[in-house]
Amino acid sequence: MFFVARAQTHRTKAKSVAPRRTRLDVDARRAQLVALGLEHFGDRSYDEVSLEDIARAAGISKGLVYHYFPTKKHYFVATVREAADRLVARALADEDGPPPLRLLRGLDAYLDYVRAHARAYVTLMRSGGLDPELSAIVDETRQLFLERITSGLRDAPEPEIARQREAPLMRLALRGWCGMVETMSVEWVAGGCVTPQAQVRDVLVSSLVEVLRAATAPALGA
Amino acid sequence: MFFVARAQTHRTKAKSVAPRRTRLDVDARRAQLVALGLEHFGDRSYDEVSLEDIARAAGISKGLVYHYFPTKKHYFVATVREAADRLVARALADEDGPPPLRLLRGLDAYLDYVRAHARAYVTLMRSGGLDPELSAIVDETRQLFLERITSGLRDAPEPEIARQREAPLMRLALRGWCGMVETMSVEWVAGGCVTPQAQVRDVLVSSLVEVLRAATAPALGA
Repeated sequence: MFFVARAQTHRTKAKSVAPRRTRLDVDARRAQLVALGLEHFGDRSYDEVSLEDIARAAGISKGLVYHYFPTKKHYFVATVREAADRLVARALADEDGPPPLRLLRGLDAYLDYVRAHARAYVTLMRSGGLDPELSAIVDETRQLFLERITSGLRDAPEPEIARQREAPLMRLALRGWCGMVETMSVEWVAGGCVTPQAQVRDVLVSSLVEVLRAATAPALGA
Repeated sequence: MFFVARAQTHRTKAKSVAPRRTRLDVDARRAQLVALGLEHFGDRSYDEVSLEDIARAAGISKGLVYHYFPTKKHYFVATVREAADRLVARALADEDGPPPLRLLRGLDAYLDYVRAHARAYVTLMRSGGLDPELSAIVDETRQLFLERITSGLRDAPEPEIARQREAPLMRLALRGWCGMVETMSVEWVAGGCVTPQAQVRDVLVSSLVEVLRAATAPALGA
């Protein structure tokens, strides 16, 4: 009884804190909750975020949050998936102009996004292996970037790079370069972004150009 | 009593399976067990290895294994630490000759080692964040390689690279390159080493040369 009384008091309190309870349809409510998740998980650790806080911020009951996400982990995974979708959408938004320029803009968008969601990015990348669902999101996202780079190489001015774009060495080298992007991004934001973003980006661009050249060298007998 | 009886039966059985019980001093026994761990964890998953197997292979009782390692995790951590020490010893063995040649030989030794312990390397690198002690070993090992590269840059023929060797951008870029080495190594061995090792190594060498150049470009006003 004591617990019931406490819970009721608490619920009454929660109501008075967030009085603007609103009725949204299912998709809109889900989207609202995920957007709140991006905000909350973006600058707090997993343990610091509670579904109670989320319910309060959304102006709904905790029970209703559980209706959409059976556990906090489900909620977190949905949030990470949304974050990954947004990252891809921004980094691959630019479909015009020559590939090198698109790469430059894409990397800038990537680094912008990483910097704006520093804490979440670092946590996710450092603990990627912890959970199969989270690793899958990270892997799929990386795969999308790799496919975009590979298809962009179709129009590379160097015919050998275009020809070798799907060769095992090229795939391996590009995968390695993606590892470099992720590692530099994590270290950059974890260290408080002291290095200017343009310098980080330029090192990555130069490295990619060299990786493409080096990965075609064996085919050229160099 | 039932359990005691079972345990005794079991111990008698274990004795008959491994009759060559030997007396070793503490350090030698510990080293023997760790060497067995390298062998067993090297091509089996964590769950597939039991301390019972290890005891049998060492010709000692399971209780004596627990005397050295209170839990299987303690044993695994000791094994990983030994593997990391051996990797460092081999990759950094070459202290003569010009730095580019040392780099080439060091990378070859690294890739040799990774290939010989493929399963353990992939598991460790993919689940690095899982355990603080394991992450610490991975971090310390990486730090050793970074320090060695940085100190080697003191004698770089390009004065600007020598001057900038400890600048934030250089540190970040070298850390990124280490991420590339690790990513390419994992993907290479996970994919069955289809790409010739020399090609993997050469892409990594070329990338490092370019990373060094690109990381000094801002200082040169390039």
